[in-house]
Amino acid sequence: MATEFDPNPTTPFLEPPFDSAATHPEPGGLFENSLLDLKCLGEFEGKSILSARDFTFTQVTEIAKLAALLEKLEITHYHPLDGKIAVTAFFEASTRTRTSFESAMLRLDGKIISIPDGGLTGQAKGESLQDIGEMFNAYCDLVIMRHTDTDSLERILENLRVPLINAGNGSGEHPTQALADWYALLKWKPELAEPKPEGAPKLHLGILGTPGSMRAVKSFLLTALLFKDHIAGVTVISEMADPFGEDVARDVTDAGIYYEVSNDVREFLPRLDVIYMNSIAFLGDSYRTLDSRYKLDAESSLKEGAVILHPLARLDELDTSLDKTSHNLYFSQAHGAVFVRQALLMAVLGRLDRLPQLS
Amino acid sequence: MATEFDPNPTTPFLEPPFDSAATHPEPGGLFENSLLDLKCLGEFEGKSILSARDFTFTQVTEIAKLAALLEKLEITHYHPLDGKIAVTAFFEASTRTRTSFESAMLRLDGKIISIPDGGLTGQAKGESLQDIGEMFNAYCDLVIMRHTDTDSLERILENLRVPLINAGNGSGEHPTQALADWYALLKWKPELAEPKPEGAPKLHLGILGTPGSMRAVKSFLLTALLFKDHIAGVTVISEMADPFGEDVARDVTDAGIYYEVSNDVREFLPRLDVIYMNSIAFLGDSYRTLDSRYKLDAESSLKEGAVILHPLARLDELDTSLDKTSHNLYFSQAHGAVFVRQALLMAVLGRLDRLPQLS
Amino acid sequence: MATEFDPNPTTPFLEPPFDSAATHPEPGGLFENSLLDLKCLGEFEGKSILSARDFTFTQVTEIAKLAALLEKLEITHYHPLDGKIAVTAFFEASTRTRTSFESAMLRLDGKIISIPDGGLTGQAKGESLQDIGEMFNAYCDLVIMRHTDTDSLERILENLRVPLINAGNGSGEHPTQALADWYALLKWKPELAEPKPEGAPKLHLGILGTPGSMRAVKSFLLTALLFKDHIAGVTVISEMADPFGEDVARDVTDAGIYYEVSNDVREFLPRLDVIYMNSIAFLGDSYRTLDSRYKLDAESSLKEGAVILHPLARLDELDTSLDKTSHNLYFSQAHGAVFVRQALLMAVLGRLDRLPQLS
Repeated sequence: MATEFDPNPTTPFLEPPFDSAATHPEPGGLFENSLLDLKCLGEFEGKSILSARDFTFTQVTEIAKLAALLEKLEITHYHPLDGKIAVTAFFEASTRTRTSFESAMLRLDGKIISIPDGGLTGQAKGESLQDIGEMFNAYCDLVIMRHTDTDSLERILENLRVPLINAGNGSGEHPTQALADWYALLKWKPELAEPKPEGAPKLHLGILGTPGSMRAVKSFLLTALLFKDHIAGVTVISEMADPFGEDVARDVTDAGIYYEVSNDVREFLPRLDVIYMNSIAFLGDSYRTLDSRYKLDAESSLKEGAVILHPLARLDELDTSLDKTSHNLYFSQAHGAVFVRQALLMAVLGRLDRLPQLS
Repeated sequence: MATEFDPNPTTPFLEPPFDSAATHPEPGGLFENSLLDLKCLGEFEGKSILSARDFTFTQVTEIAKLAALLEKLEITHYHPLDGKIAVTAFFEASTRTRTSFESAMLRLDGKIISIPDGGLTGQAKGESLQDIGEMFNAYCDLVIMRHTDTDSLERILENLRVPLINAGNGSGEHPTQALADWYALLKWKPELAEPKPEGAPKLHLGILGTPGSMRAVKSFLLTALLFKDHIAGVTVISEMADPFGEDVARDVTDAGIYYEVSNDVREFLPRLDVIYMNSIAFLGDSYRTLDSRYKLDAESSLKEGAVILHPLARLDELDTSLDKTSHNLYFSQAHGAVFVRQALLMAVLGRLDRLPQLS
Repeated sequence: MATEFDPNPTTPFLEPPFDSAATHPEPGGLFENSLLDLKCLGEFEGKSILSARDFTFTQVTEIAKLAALLEKLEITHYHPLDGKIAVTAFFEASTRTRTSFESAMLRLDGKIISIPDGGLTGQAKGESLQDIGEMFNAYCDLVIMRHTDTDSLERILENLRVPLINAGNGSGEHPTQALADWYALLKWKPELAEPKPEGAPKLHLGILGTPGSMRAVKSFLLTALLFKDHIAGVTVISEMADPFGEDVARDVTDAGIYYEVSNDVREFLPRLDVIYMNSIAFLGDSYRTLDSRYKLDAESSLKEGAVILHPLARLDELDTSLDKTSHNLYFSQAHGAVFVRQALLMAVLGRLDRLPQLS
C-alpha cells in the first residue's frame, strides 16, 4: 500500500509525472523572456489587498511572473520572510484558503499565528472587529482575514495599521483567488501577459456562477476586465435573472466587453475557451443535486483545447471524469495558488530583495 | 482602499503616528536610567507563574524594564528562544490571550504547539489533567494554560515537570494580565518603579468589577498591593455586596490600603487617577446592556490626566468615544502585553543571556 | 506554589528524578552495542506509513534504535527537517496524537500546518478526500492524517503524491502508536531486538481490548507478530465473542502464536508479563463504569516484574494507584512516542544524513 514519492516537492509539476492528460503548464514560459518589473511589484509594499478593483494589469502579470519564478526555485535557502509574523484570522472557517496562505508563509520562513475558527474568539462574545484590529497591531506584521460579513474590511481597518489581505469577505471579494485563477491562465497562455498582436485570436470566457453574490466569481471577473483586449466575450450561466448585480454589470459594460446570460451551459459549451466554475451546489450549509444544465463531465461537448477552472471545493457541478482530460486546468490552478500567495506576501512585506535573482 | 504601513513593526509605538490623543508612553523612560537586575530576573528561571501573590515588587518592575527594552529592540536577530517549544493549552478558548502568547513566543523564535479549543482534546472524553500533564512533559519546554476550573493548576501540576504559566484559571487568577496592566502604568509613570519621594502625590485607583470572582481584576488588585506606597486608596465599583471575597479583603487590609465600595462610578470619577475596567457586561455566554452607573464615555466627568485600563474584550461598559482621548491607556496596555510576555518567557526559559545588552 | 524545573528537557528521563517507582528504562541499552542499519532505515524514504502489516522486524527495531539515539541527543543544533512542512490533518480530532506529531516535527525544526478539527474543513461541506489530497500536494511534504472512516486512506491516496502517515483510520490501524508501544518494550527488554537465545524465557502478552475493532490494539498485535520468537502466547480479554475478527485471527494463527480469549482479566493476571490496555470504557462519545473483570489497580494480582502499556487516554480501566508502581511502563511509553515519531519523520523525509552520528 506504500506510495512512491519524489523528494523534491517542486519537481513533479515542472515535469508532470501524471498518468492523466490534465494540463500542467510549465511556469518557465511566463518569465524566461522578460525581466521582472521590480518598480511595479514594489507598489505592493505595505499595502492592503482588499479588492480585485485595486489591481492593475501590470501588477497581475508581474505577480504571476514572480510566482512562476518561485515555482521553479528552491526557496528554502533564502528565508525571505525571516522574522515576519502573519495572523490568519478566519472568522469564517476555511481550511483550504487558510492552509494555502499558511503554506506560502512557512515556505518563505515566515511565521503564523493561526485562528482557524473565529467562533473561538472574543468576537463570538460580541467584541468589535475594531478592537480586534487594534490588538493585531501588536501581534503581527500582516493580517490575512476571512469573514462572513461584507463590511468586515472597513470595520477592522478603522484601527489596523499593518497590511490586511482579504481572504474572502461575505458576498464581497476574494482577490487572491483571482490572482491564482489568472496565474493558471497565464501559465497556460503566457501571451496573455503581452499586448495582443493584430489578428490574434481572442478567448471566450464562460462563467458558471453568480458574480453579484459569489465573491470568488466576482473577483475573477473583475480581474478578467484587465485582460479585455484578449477577450472576445463573457457568457454567464446562472439561475439568477440578474447574476451581475448593478456594480459589476457597469464595470463589464465600461470595459466594452460583450456579455450574455443563460441558464443552460450546454448550448454555449462548444465555443467557450475558458470555463470558470464555482461550487454552485452549496445551499447554505447543505447542498443539492444539480441538473445537467449546470454540470460538466467528460461527455460534455467541450471545445477542443478548452480549459476549466474551479477553486476545487467541488461537488456535483464538476465531475471527476474530467480530472484525467486535458480540459483539467483546475489541478494546476490549485497547485499554483501557493506560489501566487508567496509572491504577494514577499511584495506586501517588502522582502523582494531577499531573492538574489531580483537584486 | 489600500492602507499605508510602516515596515518597522515597533516604530509606530515609539513615535506614535496616531491622529488620536490616546496616551502611548515611550518605553525608554522605564529603563534608561537604571540597569536591569539580572539576579532578580534570574529568579524566574524554571518557575511556574501561577498567581500574582508570587510576585515581588522588584520582579514586577524588572519584568517591566525588560519588556520596555524589548519594545525598543529589533529582536529578530537574537533568536532568544531558539529550540524551545511551548504548548498553548486553552481548555477555555480565548483567542486574545492565546495569540498574545503565541506572538511573544514567535517573535523570540520559539515554537508553538497550539491547542485553540480544549473541547477538541481527550479531556473532553473524560481524561484527567494529571495525565495530560504527564504527556506534556514529553512534548514541550513550557505549558501556557487557560482553564474554566479554578483548581486546574493543582491537578495538572501533580505530574507536570516543565514550567506552567497560568493564563487564567476559572475565577482564580490571570497573573500575566496583571503584569501587562502594570507595565502600561509603569510606562505612563516610571516613578512608580522607584521609592516614593516624601510628599509626592499618590494615585487613587478605581476598579469597575468584582475582584472576588473576576480573575483579571483580582490579579490586578493583588499586584497593586506591591505598589502600596504610591497608592492613596482603592474604590471598587460593583453590583455585589461583597466584591472582594474574604481572602482578597484581608490582603488589602493587611497592606494598609484604604478602600471603599460603591455601586455607582459617577460619584467617584472626579478623583480617580487610574480606572481599571473589565468586561462586566458579560453574563455567561450572552451579555447585557449596562446602565450609566457602570459605564464610561467621553462625556463622563473624568479627572484631568486620569487614565483608563481595560483588557479590551469590551462591550457596553467602555464607549469608543474615549478611544481618541488622552484617557485611553488601554491601547498602550494591549500593545505592551506582547512585550511583557516576551520578557517573562525569556526569564522563565532561562534565555536572558541571549541579549547582548544583558550579558 | 512554584515548581522546580530542569532546563534540559531530555535529562529527566535519562536520570529519572521521580519519587515513584515507575519503570523508565534508559534508552542507551538499545543502541550502544550495535550500529544503526542505515540501509533498512532508508527503505522508509518517501514511503507512506499506513499499516503495521507493512513493517518488517528489522524496520521496527531500527526505528526504535534511532528513537533511542534521538532521546539521548540534543537535537536542536542539527535542524534535520529544515524547510520541510507537514500538514496534520485531523478529520477526527485528537489532541494527544496531533500534539505528539507536531512536537516531533518542531523538535527537528520542521514546520506544521495544523488542522485541529476536520469539522472546520471543506470536507464538512461535502468535499472529497481525493480533492483534499490533490491540494495537499501543493501545500506540504508530508500529510499526517486521522479520520473516522476506515477507507479514508485509499480515498486520499488516489491523488496524494507526498507521503501519508496514518495517525488512525476508523476501526483500521494506528501504526505509529504500535511503534511507540514496541519502543517502550524494546527499551524495557533490549534483547527483544535480537534473535532469542535457546532456552531464554518468552513473554506472555495480555491484551485488554478488541483487536478486530480497536485500531491501536490491532496495530499493536500485528507488530507483536514480528516478535513471535519471543512470545509464549497472547491472552485477549474482551467482552466480544470474537474479538479478533477474521483477518487478524488468521494472521495470529499463521504466525504460529498460541492465543486464548477470556472475559475476565483476573484469572490470567499472575502469568502475564506485558499487559496492553486501551480505553475500553468509552462508549461512543460517552463512557461507562467498568466492573473489576476489566480493570487494573495496585491491588490486582500482577506478576512480579510485569509491565502495563496504555496509550493514556485512560478512564476507569487503569487506576492511578498503579502510577507509582514498577508496573507503570505507560509513562515511559507516552514519553517515548515523540522520539519514535521523530525517527520515523527523519526516515520518511529522507533526512537521516543530517545527523553526524549517522553519516
